[in-house]
Amino acid sequence: MTLSPKQCEKAIQCPFKDIKWLHIALTHRSAGSENNERLEFVGDSVLNFVIGNALFEQFPKANEGTLSRLRASLVNETTLAERARSLKLGDYLILGSGELKSGGFNRNSILSDALEAIIGAIFKDQGFSAAQRWILNLFADLLEATSDNHVIKDPKTRLQEFLQGRKLSIPVYTLLTSEGLSHEQVFHVECRVDDKNLMTRGSGSSRKRAEQQAAQKLLDQLDDGLSH
Amino acid sequence: MTLSPKQCEKAIQCPFKDIKWLHIALTHRSAGSENNERLEFVGDSVLNFVIGNALFEQFPKANEGTLSRLRASLVNETTLAERARSLKLGDYLILGSGELKSGGFNRNSILSDALEAIIGAIFKDQGFSAAQRWILNLFADLLEATSDNHVIKDPKTRLQEFLQGRKLSIPVYTLLTSEGLSHEQVFHVECRVDDKNLMTRGSGSSRKRAEQQAAQKLLDQLDDGLSH
Repeated sequence: MTLSPKQCEKAIQCPFKDIKWLHIALTHRSAGSENNERLEFVGDSVLNFVIGNALFEQFPKANEGTLSRLRASLVNETTLAERARSLKLGDYLILGSGELKSGGFNRNSILSDALEAIIGAIFKDQGFSAAQRWILNLFADLLEATSDNHVIKDPKTRLQEFLQGRKLSIPVYTLLTSEGLSHEQVFHVECRVDDKNLMTRGSGSSRKRAEQQAAQKLLDQLDDGLSH
Repeated sequence: MTLSPKQCEKAIQCPFKDIKWLHIALTHRSAGSENNERLEFVGDSVLNFVIGNALFEQFPKANEGTLSRLRASLVNETTLAERARSLKLGDYLILGSGELKSGGFNRNSILSDALEAIIGAIFKDQGFSAAQRWILNLFADLLEATSDNHVIKDPKTRLQEFLQGRKLSIPVYTLLTSEGLSHEQVFHVECRVDDKNLMTRGSGSSRKRAEQQAAQKLLDQLDDGLSH
């Protein structure tokens, strides 16, 4: 049996001025035309902004690429669905009969969308600061656990540690070419990991920078491989 | 000659508490390690949130897909670079010697990134409300000119008008199948535009909904064709 938005309000510990917003946020599109899709659109952008800003503050030395990667590790369907389950959002979802029968209340995409819609609803009902507080509270432990490994260790170090941890051959860097005049030379480097049959290239204003770039690209390829 | 951040502050009509933020926002990565990439990361998410929310308010009947499309038509490299040029941001950019020589101050990507970084800088220096005000002022005419054609007219109407406007054959809709019990039937429909050699399919809980979905998909294909 679906519990009411009023009961949800208690569970998420966020008193609404107008409970209508929470009602809409809990309504899946299968249940009618006034559903949570528009609130999800807004909530998604609030969430990305708030978490992005929190990471900006938490990691003052992280570059844009690292911040993007860290955010993607926190704001994704799997993590959001897990947070939604911790709030038991499935108990409050308003679903059409088809989704109800097929177990939509436990589907990652539906849970994750509803959580974003609730964020949108809090913003619409109570303004930006309230939405920010609620998000930061919901993500507090995840933010705390977010390792700054990605930040304090450079790509070459992380690649080497990754491979050693798996007893794989260490990466081999080869200088391919360098071009330009001495004060603005560009170096091109290749990074090979034979055990994984992977090869990337990097370039930069020093040989070391070129190697770091190639190592980062290789880490990205390993990441892709792991997530598939 | 590059003009100073202090002069930029006047041009963008936004007094900073700490001009350091604007200085960083104007600094391209070619000019040093304390550059605008991190502020661009934050500014991008503020901008997407503020414009997304403005569209949410402006188009109360638009669904999530329409809101996304409308936002993408406002927040993209071309539009941001055009706005940056209207503020003459190129005059204030701090570039490395290579970018300086190759005309980086007039490159779309560099101008667009700097504008997002300035938004991030205003947010960091003056808070969310100030950033929101500045963005809405910068985009006021674009938001006003954003047509609600996409909202008030349904996909079938828009497709028909698009084709008639180009003296092309009108779309032909064919019911392929319907399945399920009477109260939860699903209809599958095909939409063909022979003059364009395009065909899409749609499904929905009524024949009309299925046709609207097929028409929307065909519009998307026409959009893709135009933008390539």
